[in-house]
This record gives sequence, C-alpha cells and structure tokens, in this order.
Amino acid sequence: MKKILVLNGPNLNMLGKREPEIYGAATLDEINNSLKQKAGSMGLMLDFCQSNHEGDLLDRIQKLDGEYDGAVLNAGAFTHTSIALRDAVLATSVPVVEVHLSDPAARERYRRRSYLSGAAKGVVSGFGARSYELALYWFAVS
Amino acid sequence: MKKILVLNGPNLNMLGKREPEIYGAATLDEINNSLKQKAGSMGLMLDFCQSNHEGDLLDRIQKLDGEYDGAVLNAGAFTHTSIALRDAVLATSVPVVEVHLSDPAARERYRRRSYLSGAAKGVVSGFGARSYELALYWFAVS
Amino acid sequence: MKKILVLNGPNLNMLGKREPEIYGAATLDEINNSLKQKAGSMGLMLDFCQSNHEGDLLDRIQKLDGEYDGAVLNAGAFTHTSIALRDAVLATSVPVVEVHLSDPAARERYRRRSYLSGAAKGVVSGFGARSYELALYWFAVS
Amino acid sequence: MKKILVLNGPNLNMLGKREPEIYGAATLDEINNSLKQKAGSMGLMLDFCQSNHEGDLLDRIQKLDGEYDGAVLNAGAFTHTSIALRDAVLATSVPVVEVHLSDPAARERYRRRSYLSGAAKGVVSGFGARSYELALYWFAVS
Amino acid sequence: MKKILVLNGPNLNMLGKREPEIYGAATLDEINNSLKQKAGSMGLMLDFCQSNHEGDLLDRIQKLDGEYDGAVLNAGAFTHTSIALRDAVLATSVPVVEVHLSDPAARERYRRRSYLSGAAKGVVSGFGARSYELALYWFAVS
Amino acid sequence: MKKILVLNGPNLNMLGKREPEIYGAATLDEINNSLKQKAGSMGLMLDFCQSNHEGDLLDRIQKLDGEYDGAVLNAGAFTHTSIALRDAVLATSVPVVEVHLSDPAARERYRRRSYLSGAAKGVVSGFGARSYELALYWFAVS
Amino acid sequence: MKKILVLNGPNLNMLGKREPEIYGAATLDEINNSLKQKAGSMGLMLDFCQSNHEGDLLDRIQKLDGEYDGAVLNAGAFTHTSIALRDAVLATSVPVVEVHLSDPAARERYRRRSYLSGAAKGVVSGFGARSYELALYWFAVS
Amino acid sequence: MKKILVLNGPNLNMLGKREPEIYGAATLDEINNSLKQKAGSMGLMLDFCQSNHEGDLLDRIQKLDGEYDGAVLNAGAFTHTSIALRDAVLATSVPVVEVHLSDPAARERYRRRSYLSGAAKGVVSGFGARSYELALYWFAVS
Amino acid sequence: MKKILVLNGPNLNMLGKREPEIYGAATLDEINNSLKQKAGSMGLMLDFCQSNHEGDLLDRIQKLDGEYDGAVLNAGAFTHTSIALRDAVLATSVPVVEVHLSDPAARERYRRRSYLSGAAKGVVSGFGARSYELALYWFAVS
Amino acid sequence: MKKILVLNGPNLNMLGKREPEIYGAATLDEINNSLKQKAGSMGLMLDFCQSNHEGDLLDRIQKLDGEYDGAVLNAGAFTHTSIALRDAVLATSVPVVEVHLSDPAARERYRRRSYLSGAAKGVVSGFGARSYELALYWFAVS
Amino acid sequence: MKKILVLNGPNLNMLGKREPEIYGAATLDEINNSLKQKAGSMGLMLDFCQSNHEGDLLDRIQKLDGEYDGAVLNAGAFTHTSIALRDAVLATSVPVVEVHLSDPAARERYRRRSYLSGAAKGVVSGFGARSYELALYWFAVS
Amino acid sequence: MKKILVLNGPNLNMLGKREPEIYGAATLDEINNSLKQKAGSMGLMLDFCQSNHEGDLLDRIQKLDGEYDGAVLNAGAFTHTSIALRDAVLATSVPVVEVHLSDPAARERYRRRSYLSGAAKGVVSGFGARSYELALYWFAVS
Repeated sequence: MKKILVLNGPNLNMLGKREPEIYGAATLDEINNSLKQKAGSMGLMLDFCQSNHEGDLLDRIQKLDGEYDGAVLNAGAFTHTSIALRDAVLATSVPVVEVHLSDPAARERYRRRSYLSGAAKGVVSGFGARSYELALYWFAVS
Repeated sequence: MKKILVLNGPNLNMLGKREPEIYGAATLDEINNSLKQKAGSMGLMLDFCQSNHEGDLLDRIQKLDGEYDGAVLNAGAFTHTSIALRDAVLATSVPVVEVHLSDPAARERYRRRSYLSGAAKGVVSGFGARSYELALYWFAVS
Repeated sequence: MKKILVLNGPNLNMLGKREPEIYGAATLDEINNSLKQKAGSMGLMLDFCQSNHEGDLLDRIQKLDGEYDGAVLNAGAFTHTSIALRDAVLATSVPVVEVHLSDPAARERYRRRSYLSGAAKGVVSGFGARSYELALYWFAVS
Repeated sequence: MKKILVLNGPNLNMLGKREPEIYGAATLDEINNSLKQKAGSMGLMLDFCQSNHEGDLLDRIQKLDGEYDGAVLNAGAFTHTSIALRDAVLATSVPVVEVHLSDPAARERYRRRSYLSGAAKGVVSGFGARSYELALYWFAVS
Repeated sequence: MKKILVLNGPNLNMLGKREPEIYGAATLDEINNSLKQKAGSMGLMLDFCQSNHEGDLLDRIQKLDGEYDGAVLNAGAFTHTSIALRDAVLATSVPVVEVHLSDPAARERYRRRSYLSGAAKGVVSGFGARSYELALYWFAVS
Repeated sequence: MKKILVLNGPNLNMLGKREPEIYGAATLDEINNSLKQKAGSMGLMLDFCQSNHEGDLLDRIQKLDGEYDGAVLNAGAFTHTSIALRDAVLATSVPVVEVHLSDPAARERYRRRSYLSGAAKGVVSGFGARSYELALYWFAVS
Repeated sequence: MKKILVLNGPNLNMLGKREPEIYGAATLDEINNSLKQKAGSMGLMLDFCQSNHEGDLLDRIQKLDGEYDGAVLNAGAFTHTSIALRDAVLATSVPVVEVHLSDPAARERYRRRSYLSGAAKGVVSGFGARSYELALYWFAVS
Repeated sequence: MKKILVLNGPNLNMLGKREPEIYGAATLDEINNSLKQKAGSMGLMLDFCQSNHEGDLLDRIQKLDGEYDGAVLNAGAFTHTSIALRDAVLATSVPVVEVHLSDPAARERYRRRSYLSGAAKGVVSGFGARSYELALYWFAVS
Repeated sequence: MKKILVLNGPNLNMLGKREPEIYGAATLDEINNSLKQKAGSMGLMLDFCQSNHEGDLLDRIQKLDGEYDGAVLNAGAFTHTSIALRDAVLATSVPVVEVHLSDPAARERYRRRSYLSGAAKGVVSGFGARSYELALYWFAVS
Repeated sequence: MKKILVLNGPNLNMLGKREPEIYGAATLDEINNSLKQKAGSMGLMLDFCQSNHEGDLLDRIQKLDGEYDGAVLNAGAFTHTSIALRDAVLATSVPVVEVHLSDPAARERYRRRSYLSGAAKGVVSGFGARSYELALYWFAVS
Repeated sequence: MKKILVLNGPNLNMLGKREPEIYGAATLDEINNSLKQKAGSMGLMLDFCQSNHEGDLLDRIQKLDGEYDGAVLNAGAFTHTSIALRDAVLATSVPVVEVHLSDPAARERYRRRSYLSGAAKGVVSGFGARSYELALYWFAVS
Repeated sequence: MKKILVLNGPNLNMLGKREPEIYGAATLDEINNSLKQKAGSMGLMLDFCQSNHEGDLLDRIQKLDGEYDGAVLNAGAFTHTSIALRDAVLATSVPVVEVHLSDPAARERYRRRSYLSGAAKGVVSGFGARSYELALYWFAVS
C-alpha cells in the first residue's frame, strides 16, 4: 500500500471562507475527508499537512524520502514566489505532483509563473477539489 | 455512457518517432488503444482524431455540442500559437480538458504560454501518456 | 456595380452562440442577410465566405484580383497571429478593409496586436455587426 | 434630427500643411464643409470644434450630455498620451466615436496605444477624411 | 542521385507580383525552373511543393523520411509563427535547410524570430532566389 | 491657523456622475463642503480649486509659496502622465500631499505609475472621499 | 470601542537602528507607545505584533475575524514579495489598511510593486511614523 | 537680421528657485537678458515666451511660419510626454532647435525619451544656460 | 580572535544528496568540519547555523551585532526572492559576506538577481565549498 | 578572376581547440586550405585574415574597395556587440557575406542579435566550415 | 589660448563616402580644416585624432590631463556599445563634449542609448559638421 | 610553484585617480606590488598585464595554455560588453577567476550583466583590492 502525503500551503486552511467564487465552498477538512475515502478504494494511505510557513513545507518535503511514496503538493501562493520549494522538490527522490484548484494560468499575471513546474512529476489544475483526486489516481495507477 | 472525443493536434501522429527522450516511446495508436481499454472500465466511450490542420481541429471542436459529452485536447504546438482554438473552446458548451505529455512550463520559453488555459475546464500535464488517462478519469467521476 | 467579398475567419460561424455578451446575439447568416439588403441600396454586390482554415483565407485573398473590387475581412483570432494573412493582403492590389465586432484594443492583451493594420486600407471596429456595414459604406462612396 | 459634435484635437488645424503624404492635402475647413453637406442628407446636424488644449477638449466632452446626441472625436496625438480624455469619454453618457485619418497601428510604436479604445463606442481609422464620414454614417443608422 | 524536396510556404506563389522591391520580379515557376536546371548539373533531383496551408506543410515534412534525402524549406510567414513546423522538422531524420529570399533580421521586428532555427540543419538568407541555390549546393557537396 | 489648498485635477468635477461604482456617489461640491466642516474643527482653513487644464494646475502649484501652508492634490489622470506636475511639486517649498479616491495600484496598468510619488510629502489612497480627510489630518497634526 | 491590531513585518523591529535617514530615528517601541496614547483619544484599543516570519503574519491575519475590528499592516519587504499575504488579506472580512513609512514608489524598482494594494482597504505611505496614525484616524472616523 | 523665438515650457519660469543644484541659480529673466545681449552681437533678434500650458506652446509653434526664422525650444517636462509638440514641430517649416539645461539622458529613466528628437533640427543639452546660446550660435552661422 | 557566524539558508542541509553534479558530493557537516579546521589556523572562531525558515535567518542576522565580528551567508534560494534578507543585512553593522557554491549568474534566469548584492560586503561564488573558505580568508586578513 | 577576402574575427584562430562539440575539430588553417582548393575550381582568388582586434577588422573592411570584389566575414562574437562593424560594412561598396559556423539563433540569447544583418549582402549559418564554402559559391555564380 | 583635442571614433574617416544622405558629403579632412580656421578666430588651438580602435581612444582620453584643456568627442558607434569610454571620460578631469552629426535619438533603436551621456560635459547632435563647431564655441566662451 | 597572470582591463591603469570613492585610493602599481608580496608567501609567481585594448586581452588569454597555471581577470567595463572575452575564457583550459573591486550587481543596470560568469571558474567581487588577493588564495589552496 503506497503512502502519500497531501501537503497544502498558505491560506488553504481558509478554503470555504476565502473567495468561494474562485476556490469553492468546501473546507479543507471536507476535502481531506473525501480524499481519504477515495484513497482507500485506490489502495493509498494518506497523511495530511497544511502550513502557512514556507520553512515548514521545506522541512516536510526534505523528510519525504523513506517515509512516503509520493506527495501531492498544493503550494498555494508559494507556487509563484518560492524557488526554495522548487529546490526542495528537486532534492527529494520521491515523486511530487503539483496541484491547483483553479488554473493559475487563467488568473492574475503574477500567478502564471510556477517555480514547481519542471521539478514536479506532473501538474493537475483547474478541477477544484478534484485536482487532488486526479493526482492520487496517478499514484494509484503508476 | 459518456462519449468523449480524444483530439490530438500537430505532430502527435509522430509520437514514438519524435524526440522519444521528451515524448516517450509509445506511438499514438498504442496510446489510443490503451486508453480505449481503460475507458471501457471507466464507463466511457472514446472517439479519436488527430490532425496537423488547425482548421480541422476548429471544425471538430465546433461540432462537439450534441455529439459528445466532453473532449480531451492535446493541441500540441497550437497550444502556444492559436487564439482561434481558445475561441473555439470558449464557444462550445461541452467541457474540454487540456492535456500535455510533458510539462510545457518546464520547456522552451515559447511553450510556456497556453492560449487554452482559462478556456479549458482543467489542465493535466507532465505524466506522459498517463495525462490522457487522468483527464478521462475526471470525465468518469464528475 | 462593385463586387465585394465579405470574408470571415475562424469561429465567426459560431456567432450568436459564442459569448453573446461580447459578440451579440445575431448569427452570421442573419448578419450576412442584413448586409445583402443594405448592399443592394448602396449599389454593391456581395459574396460571402467563412472558413476556420487560415490556408483557405489565404487562397481566397490571393484570388481577389480580377474577381472582386474589394474585400471586407474579419479575420477573427487570425488577426493577432497570422503574418501570412498580412502578406496576402499586401500582395493583392484590391483594397481590403479590416473589421472587428468588438474593439480588440479593449480586450485581452494578446488581442491588441493586429498584423493586418497597415496592410489593410482601413479599420472599423467596435460597432458590432454595424462594423461590416460601415466598411461597405466606404466601398460605396469611394 | 440628431446633433453631433465633431471634435478635433491638437495640430489638426494644420491639415493640408502638415506632412500631406500622411494626412492628405485637404484643410480642416474643407473637410468640415464636406462633412456638413453629407450630414444634411444623413439627417444629422453638425457642430465643429478644434483645440490644441487638452483641457478645452475635456471641458467640451464633459458638456456633451444634454446638448448633443453624439460626438466624433479625432484626438490626434492626445489619443496616445491622455488618460484624462479616456476618463472624460467614460464619464459622459453620450456615444463618442474615435476616428483617425491614418491607421495609428501602422505608424510609430508610440502611436499604437490608444487610451480612447474601450471607452469610445467604436473606432474608424485609415480612410483619410472619409473616417469622419463613416463615423457619421454610424450615427445616422444606429 | 540525391532527391530533394523544395518546399514553399504561404504567399510564395505570389512571387513576382507581391512587393517586388523586396522579393524580386521572378515568379516561383521561373525560380523553380532555374533551380531544376542547376540541380541537374549538381547531381540532384528536385520535387516542388507550395502551399498556403500550414497543415499541408506539416504533412509533407512528416513524409520526408524514406522518400527524400533532404528538403529546402522557405516557410514564408510561418517561419515566425509556427512552432508546429519546428516540431515537424525536429521529428524528421532528413536534413532540412531553411532559406529566405530577404534577410528577416533586417525587416520588421516580428519577422526576426525564426522558430525553425536550431531545428533546421542550417540557414541561408538574403540572396534572393540564389538562397535556394546555395541550399542545393550544400546538399550536392555534403 | 494653517491655510491649505485642495487642488483637484481633470474630471474630478464629474464626481457623482462618473463611474460611481469606482468613485462613489458624492459630488465634488458635497465632498468639499464636508471637508470644510471637518477642517474647521482641525484648525485648518481650506481653499478649493478644480481644473481640467494641466497648465492651470501648474500655475496654482507654482504660486503656493507665501500663500498657503500646504496643498492636498488629487491630480486624477494627470498623476500618471504629467512629469510637469512632478517638477512643479518639487519646485515648491510647501508640502503637497497626494491623494486618490481609489487605489491606482489596484486598477489598470497605466494607472500604476505615479509621477508625483517621491515628490509629494506622502500618499493617501483608496479611502474614497476620506482620502482627502486623512491628508488634512496630517496637516493638522504635523 | 474598536479593537485594532497593528501588525509589523520583517526588520521593523530594527527601526531607529536601520538606515535612519530613510526610516527615522524612533524605535518601534517608541512609535507604538505614541500610537497607544493617540488611539486612546480616538476611541481605539490597540494590540501590537511584529514578526520576521511570513507564516506568523499569515496566521495572525487569518485570526483577525472575531477578534479585531481592523488591522494596520506594515508588511515591510514582504509587501513586494508575498502573494500569500495578499491572499490572506483577501480571505479576511476585517478591513486592513496598508501603511509604509517611506513611499515605496519613490525607492528602488523592486519596492514599487505592492501585492497588498487592491486587497487592502486603502494605503497610507510616506509620512514616517505618522502613516500609522493616519490609518488609525481612518478606523476612528469610518 | 534673423528673428528667433526662444520658447520655454513648463516650470522654466521657476528657474533659480527650482532644484538649483540641477538647473543653476540664474532666473529665466536673467538668462533671457543675457541671451538678448549675445544675440545682438550675433545679428539675431529675439522674442521670448514661457508657458505652463502645452496648448499655448502648440499655438505658438503653429504660428512660427512667416513670423520667425527659427525657434529655440526648451520644452521642459513636455519633451518626454507630448507627442503633440513633436507633431507641431514637424508641421512647421521653420527650423526648431531643442535645448536642455541638463542632459536628460543622465537623469531619471522617464526623462530619457524625447519626442522632439528627429523632429527638431538638432539638440543641445547639458551646458546649463549656455545650451540656449549654442543654439543661437547655430542660427547665426547657418 | 574574531568570531564568525556561517549561516546557511534553505535546502543547504541537503548538500551531498541534492543535484550533486551542481553542488558537489560533500555534505554540509563535512564542509563545516573542514571550515572549522581551516578557521583555526586563520585565527577565526566559527559558529554554524542552517535553516529553511526565512524568519529564522532574519532573526539571526538581526542579532549579529555584539555577538559576532562577521557572517558568511549562503542564503540559497532566498538570495533571489527575499528583499527582507537584504534589509536585515543593511540594518546590521557587522560585515556580511555573500557566498554561493555555483555561480548563480551562470544558471537559470531567476537565479541571476541577488537581493543581497550591494548590501553584503562582498560576494564569492562558483568555487564550490571553497567559496566559504575564501570568505573566511577575507575576515582573517581584513 | 574575382578576389575575395575571407575575414575572421575574435577567437576563430582557436578553432579545433575551442568547444569542438559546437565549432568542429578542424583548425582555421585547415579550413582555409580547404577553401583555397575549392575557390580555385570556382574561379576565385582568396586572401585570409584573422584578428582579435575589432579595430583591425574595421580597418580591413574600410580598405576593401578597389582591392577586393567581395568579402566573407565571420565576425565571431563581434557579430552581436559591434555596431561599428555594421557601419563599416554599410560604408563599403563591396558585397560582404556574413557567415557563422553554428546557427546563432539556436544558441544563447545574447548571440541572437546580429548587427551585421541587413548590412551584409546575405547570411549563411549552421553548416560548420561549409558555411564559408556556400558564401564563396555565391560569389562564384553571382 | 585653450588647446582642444578633436577625437573621432570608428568609421568617421569614411565621411563623405559612407551613407552621405545621413552623414553629409564633406570628408573628415575637409571638416577638420574648416574647424581649424574657425577655431583660430575663437582663440582655440586644435589637434585631431581618428581611430577605429576603442583602445586607442581610451589611451588618448586617459592622457588628456595636462596636455589639453578639453576634448570634442564623436565616438561614432562606440557611443552605444562602450562602457569603457564612459569610464575613461569619468576618469579624466578635462571637460569632454559629446557630438554627433545626426541625432542618434532619431535613428535605429540601438543607437539611442549613449553611454557617454552624463559623463560628458554636454551633448550637441544633429547639426552635421556644425555639431563640432558648436562644441568648440562652448570651449571658447566658457 | 604555480604561475599566475593578473590581467587588468580598460581604465584600471587609472586606479587611484578615477572615482576614488568607488574604486579606492591605491594605484594599480601599489596593488600589484602588494599582491606580489602576498603571492610569495602563498607559493605563487605573478605576472601583470593591463590593457585598454580588448584585442590585447584576447591575445593574452589565448596564450595562457602552457605558460600559466591560471589567471586573475578584472575585465573592467569589458565584463559587460565583450562576448569575445567570454569565448576566449571558454577556449582556454587554464582556470580564470573573475574579480571586481566593487560589486557590479550593486551599480548601474548596465554593469549587472557579466559575460564572463559561467565561463570563469569563479567570481570574487566587492572587496576592493582584496578581491585579487582572495582569487590568489584560491589558486594557492586548490
């Protein structure tokens, strides 16, 4: 059974409260619970982590090796500003999939650059909470 | 049973021959056959189309309404140059998912802009032939 | 009696269906019929052509000489991406008037550049279906 | 009978003298007289105003409401430098049509940006003095 | 005896008529005939193809393998807009030489970027119809 | 008792009529009257001036010395286009506070550059009519 | 009585020591004490917080709802680099006022972009320690 | 005897008061008197004009023909923002020499572009009040 | 004996594991031990610190005064994204030397800008682990 | 018999030693000898010159008139930095052909601009040492 | 009597031959002779120097101190590419006046940047050979 | 004993005279003498060379192989303009260390790009004359 870390970055704990017309009405807990159920039927075990601290996310990614078979990473706004996250993803040997609820390429100009792209295994964006699910599906079938 | 059109743009008929270190060794036929099998178990019916002609792709997208429940679109190089494809996707009421074998954001600068993003329902990129499969999974569960 | 070709590019056959808040509710057929009536009273004979294929538009423009006294060209999204259309307009000795339903300068950044401008005789934009009519008026009085 | 103000900006009083290879040989008075005649047969009443002072043009546009049914505005060089003119056009409820003798998009780089576009009802450019006439035609038929 | 395809893109069928001060007075047929004669004495067999359709050019380049020993490609305006042509040239194992009648680097800004460069074997530009001849010479001696 | 000039630039006389969703429903007269009342209790004497003419604003700023203890300047669209206003503010020894009703940094790109910033004593923006009041408060307490 | 959080970002604890010619000679404690006195007479209760950790600032802003009636935020250098802070301000329903001691628009190029602008209620900059006071004044009167 | 108009733009009436470390301590009257004396010995008759109003400068330049043999123009800040001034200089047949007290190319970025250059006969900059004198010398000897 | 803090930023604890073809095979501990030995013979006492948290690095730099005679700072990816680090280095009176293992100017575009440069005393880059040693040498001899 | 100067710029004397994977293994002497043989059979007489000094290259180009019927110029890195070379080529009446071993458009960004293009008669690039030969062929047949 | 060096850069020895429509028909010798005559009546002694070698120009400027009272420098194309020339002018205590025959700001984009501006005492451009004379006039009267 | 060439570019012979607030008061001879002494104790033999001629620097770098074990290169202003120097450094097998007295990244924009970076072994900048010494230290210990 593969063990996957679902890692959420800044402000994603505000889901459901923050600009629901963009991010949807579900809270992060609701999303995580729903993912847990689906993961079971896919043969995946999930852990969850959310932090507003870039350093915490870096620490977690650095410790993936040996503990997890993969990570699903929604780095939120750090996607566009953190070269350090990119370096951390490059430094780990565990595959990391980048996800976004909405498609950053369709939003403000400063959300178009992703420092994770090219470091992450692949990207899923624009499907709302389903973006996480598609990423899990990949871990299940690959 | 949902009916989905898998639509491939320019040079994707060269898969397996063209720069396999980037695009993988499987041919488009092999990919399509594999997708067909998986689609069956997901409860989807697939049609396939590939063209090097932007006009053909436009014609096909304009006729999605009424014939298909969705489309998976790998527009290849047209992703970066065709505003007309974007307009066609915006003009159809059928959801279109944008897929890429490799992550364009990790390649040459001129492959970073996608005119489809924001018009497509969502984007899956970087998983090789699995990118199509994740897109199909979305149609199956949504 | 002057003979004028009204030439429409990609997705303009979707008028009425596609983003009516931008492009209006009339279909291309309705617009063409209305133009035909007005053209009669202006002493102009009209032919109509729409294509999603850049190559078809090029072929038609190259054959204007000898067959038509002018052309009204709404190149749609090709306005912003096709240098070849510009070259074709430059290569013909027949005056071509560029029209747009909405004003591209007031929309997305990538719709601001027109490769036709400077090659076309003049530009009319922003008046909806009336943009075609103003272009015809010019052929009638010049 | 609609009442239309034809408003000309800086240096347009120099028409006929200034770079005739770009702007034509007719003086502004000749153009205005010719427009007056055509306007009569179109059922329009015209007033004319030219000023080299941005502030004067702003004052005039602010007073359109209640006095005129529309304005034809050739803002000359202010087209490219005056955000205040844009704001004035946005603040009036009377439709304003932007005209240019030559097509700015085909000239120097700094003449390509029009602050009026998107604020004006529509744009007519490149037809020489006929550009004004097409704008009047629009007021006559709309 | 090497077999070479001479492939011409959009508007090159207008040679002799289109802006002769830039492109010269010879028609494409005259150029092709002249090339045929020279090719004979160089030990090369030539086929010719011109199309205004990007898709046709893509189809032809994809079929070079097995049929031709090389291609001389004047992609005209597509040089500057078609990433798909670049991809097609990269996907074929047959050497393709890029030619231009005039030097694009000496013309409008938007003609300076060539998507073919780096994919093509080499580039010859600025020598008018002789550009094709130099490309053939390379096939003859290499 | 300090004497302060409240100086408003182009189109601010249209307040209440112009795009009230951005600028609010109060007219300039209403704002000025309200400011006058508050100024009294702050120990400030106010004069008011509005002009659509950049030259008038320049003339007024040049005459601040000796007549006023400070100025509150809402230069409207001239904020973004007038280097001359910046030079005038630099040339006066009287402190000038820059105010904006809405935050220009949150609007169109061409409203983001302020030529006044760095020349003005400070900036207050985004508080609607309260922006003037905050500026007056600064004069009262400093 | 309104309760306001005065939130200071990185290096603002160095005030008085760091480049006093730009930021003034007062320490953050001195500024805070002075603000506390003024706040009393304005009918505001203040809390203070300073952190060099972006994540701490995010945590604090996320918890404003229910605890405070508003916040005065000097995000220091994070103003120009943190999209996450912008997202947090957008996610809270409590008004946040952006303040700066000096006017960033008058300093280095990379200090000109504020990710907070447009998310914050308004901006006050350039008045030194008085910038905080003007922000408080707004909370007092609005 | 040649008759020359010395035309000064915005804020140049502030010379001596405004940033003397950049513009020198002499007032505009002192400079003009000194020029008048030198002009006499050069066989030139001078008139002087200063205005903060772009429209006034345009009016004056449009009336040069027939009244003056040349003009010396220090357009101040309008140099960098007024395309209308450029157009007026191009429209007159009288030679206009552009002068600057300091060298704009050595100052802020937004002072580097001169819309007058290429329209004016020549440029003299950086010599303080002597810049005017060198321009007069040119009229005297040419 | 001078006391120097060797301060390492994000992901530098991954040295030896992370992209060894760029960063070398030595771990951070090995590098630090080797530096300690050399520092002894140079008459320097070293402390070491590594953190993935920007806030921790800021806290440490703010406390250099009084505790250390200098710092060697490899800020890793923060070099390119943290204006706050620049401000902290400017705010301390202790000399800080910026070091990089590889030369950022020779890598991806987004690694070329260093916010530290100009704030740091000097820069040493490209010598692998020797970069630290050269920085220590400077503290020893200056 | 035409006399042609083959002129090589900086570092081309290092051919064979310098980055052979880009520039090939042949030395400049070997290339020149091979060219000499071919030139004979083409009816051309060759002289050779290489210099690392931009001034020397300028001197040689200035003296082409009267001594040579043409020049083949590989300006090496000066291609991208020397406007003076462009001016010299423009000032001579003798045709100069620009050659490059590799295609600069396919290399680093700063090698993409050629100041020679548009001044040179034509360009041949990407064919290795054959680039010179193609240029000679042009002199032979034109 | 002041001693002035007239220093000309690359290709200026080609004057009269090179693009006379831009640079005039006079040779450099004719210009120098004419300057010598005028210099006499101005009380100036002239030396002349022209070189195509940037290093020669640098050597000459470095030796101005003690030998000359000033220099007139037409650096030709080096104006736009040589930061070293700027540094040399900054390093000398002798005033250097920058001259150009035509106005670089009115020519190609890459001729608009002058590295000399701000380092030179002043600039005279656009008056043809008279540009030198105006520069000498300045030395005579200052 | 290693033999090292210390190579200085344009204007570095002016050290001590040229802008001493940036470059320090020591002359190049003083710096070289001081380096010679230190080099002795480090077991290095030094030669020195300074030239204002880019070509001379190229010639010297090309001859490093076989004569020297390394070079310390302060290319001065050529750092930012000479791609040829980069190519020469790439073409030699001897390690070259780039040094700068001040940190170019902290100065004018046009001094920020170094063509040497990535070609040189490493970079030392900002330590004044000590920058050379740190470079020598590297040769001593590596």
